[in-house]
Amino acid sequence: MHVIYLAAIVAEAMSRALMGMRRGMDRFGLALVGAVTALGGGTVRDVLLGHYPLGWISHPNYIFITICAATVAAALAKPLHGLRSLFVTVDALGLVAFAIIGCNVAAEMDVSAPIVVLAGAITGVCGGMLRDLLCNEMPLVLRQDLYASVALAAGTLYLALQHVGVEQNTASAVALIGGFGLRLAAVRYRWRLKSFAAADSGGVH
Amino acid sequence: MHVIYLAAIVAEAMSRALMGMRRGMDRFGLALVGAVTALGGGTVRDVLLGHYPLGWISHPNYIFITICAATVAAALAKPLHGLRSLFVTVDALGLVAFAIIGCNVAAEMDVSAPIVVLAGAITGVCGGMLRDLLCNEMPLVLRQDLYASVALAAGTLYLALQHVGVEQNTASAVALIGGFGLRLAAVRYRWRLKSFAAADSGGVH
Amino acid sequence: MHVIYLAAIVAEAMSRALMGMRRGMDRFGLALVGAVTALGGGTVRDVLLGHYPLGWISHPNYIFITICAATVAAALAKPLHGLRSLFVTVDALGLVAFAIIGCNVAAEMDVSAPIVVLAGAITGVCGGMLRDLLCNEMPLVLRQDLYASVALAAGTLYLALQHVGVEQNTASAVALIGGFGLRLAAVRYRWRLKSFAAADSGGVH
Repeated sequence: MHVIYLAAIVAEAMSRALMGMRRGMDRFGLALVGAVTALGGGTVRDVLLGHYPLGWISHPNYIFITICAATVAAALAKPLHGLRSLFVTVDALGLVAFAIIGCNVAAEMDVSAPIVVLAGAITGVCGGMLRDLLCNEMPLVLRQDLYASVALAAGTLYLALQHVGVEQNTASAVALIGGFGLRLAAVRYRWRLKSFAAADSGGVH
Repeated sequence: MHVIYLAAIVAEAMSRALMGMRRGMDRFGLALVGAVTALGGGTVRDVLLGHYPLGWISHPNYIFITICAATVAAALAKPLHGLRSLFVTVDALGLVAFAIIGCNVAAEMDVSAPIVVLAGAITGVCGGMLRDLLCNEMPLVLRQDLYASVALAAGTLYLALQHVGVEQNTASAVALIGGFGLRLAAVRYRWRLKSFAAADSGGVH
Repeated sequence: MHVIYLAAIVAEAMSRALMGMRRGMDRFGLALVGAVTALGGGTVRDVLLGHYPLGWISHPNYIFITICAATVAAALAKPLHGLRSLFVTVDALGLVAFAIIGCNVAAEMDVSAPIVVLAGAITGVCGGMLRDLLCNEMPLVLRQDLYASVALAAGTLYLALQHVGVEQNTASAVALIGGFGLRLAAVRYRWRLKSFAAADSGGVH
């Protein structure tokens, strides 16, 4: 799970840096956006739960990893642009991995089951939400219901499996694969919950 | 006061969901905006005061209540649109109730009187401020001085009455009614503090 | 250092209030923007570090000082407009002073050296970032790399000097003067790290 976490923050930092480049940010801004996206979800979760110290404060190397990933992504921007589908894939993996990691953190804090699932979804979603706030955009998650819903579904599946006695590592793996497949299917087939704005053009994340 | 709190978060969630609909949000976004507006003010107050656990973490049913209220409001949008004045009224009640509840939370934490009043105003105002950030709008509270000022006035009145020996329930009721009347009068007569931008068109909240 | 802190929050509150005036804010909004800019950096730092109670909660007079400064600046707007270069100067001093104060707060909390430097930069930069979020602008810091970089450099210099045995007051003074000079030089000569958006017009802060 720790390896998946590192892969997820690297992927998040890289894909977000590429987005930031289109908005005319400089190197510092790209690195900041990459680090905020990758570490922001866990930070919001920990502040809301009162779970101190924050992960990146006890492990500052996480910050360097995300900044390096964002910088490398920006430097390699041209060739990586052709790998867009790879990033969508790794981003989906990161979303689900963040959700399960967030569930584990909350589960250790003796809160109720709905809050555990919600903490997972916050971990998966809030990094991107902070990035959108910094970039002065309306958060994508408010328009893309099958981003947050996938995080909620993966967390619910994870908790339910553990509740019926499945061992933790198995439950993690099943929830990871299930959520990952759901997210990829949502992107590929452009699934959306019924929106109130039918005219709204549904951009793929 | 607990009943007023529940009524206030329901009203906030509903009125904000209606605003979100105009911006092309889907069901998930509407529910999120409703819950954030209703619970965000208290969350900001508790994080700033270091008052853990947060209310909605120890009472997750608050989240379900606000999500249900937002969803119901979205489903009933057409008929409810005619009830706009009802929502302005309940929103004013919610603002003042949040302010007084916020004062009570801070008062238990042994902070100075100005901070108690400020904590009340933060509870009343920050939910809407978070919503405006999520919707990528300049927060209304920065342009509508008689929204935050009403929360400050109600909190000051509440503390002052308790200071001169008035019993807490009586002080709550007087501050609630006084702040509520002040807010309704401000909306009806379009009171504004002198703005530096005279040309700025003053939309009613 | 305490005097410098007070001067810094007054200068920040004033210069930000002047910016807010151009956006048609009323008196309440100006005072809020002034106080948020001056106190927001330290607040974000303390929430992330779990360092409670927050400074302005144990010293509410800081809030009054910043609100008064913002109000005075707004009232004196015409004559002060000619003093723009004075504000750039005091703002640069405030940025560096905030960074060093932030380092000191974090250093008392037994965190690693990179986090101490980062806490200083957060203190210097996040107030302005919150202000930009409230005013619905893309944070300047994402486009102006030599704002945050100066805060990082001053904090690094400060820690490095203490590490090699320089006494704290001397280290503070050297880091303050060095960072201040670096920031003024960056403003005057319009230094920028190589931006990916060459066409982007680089406005001076």
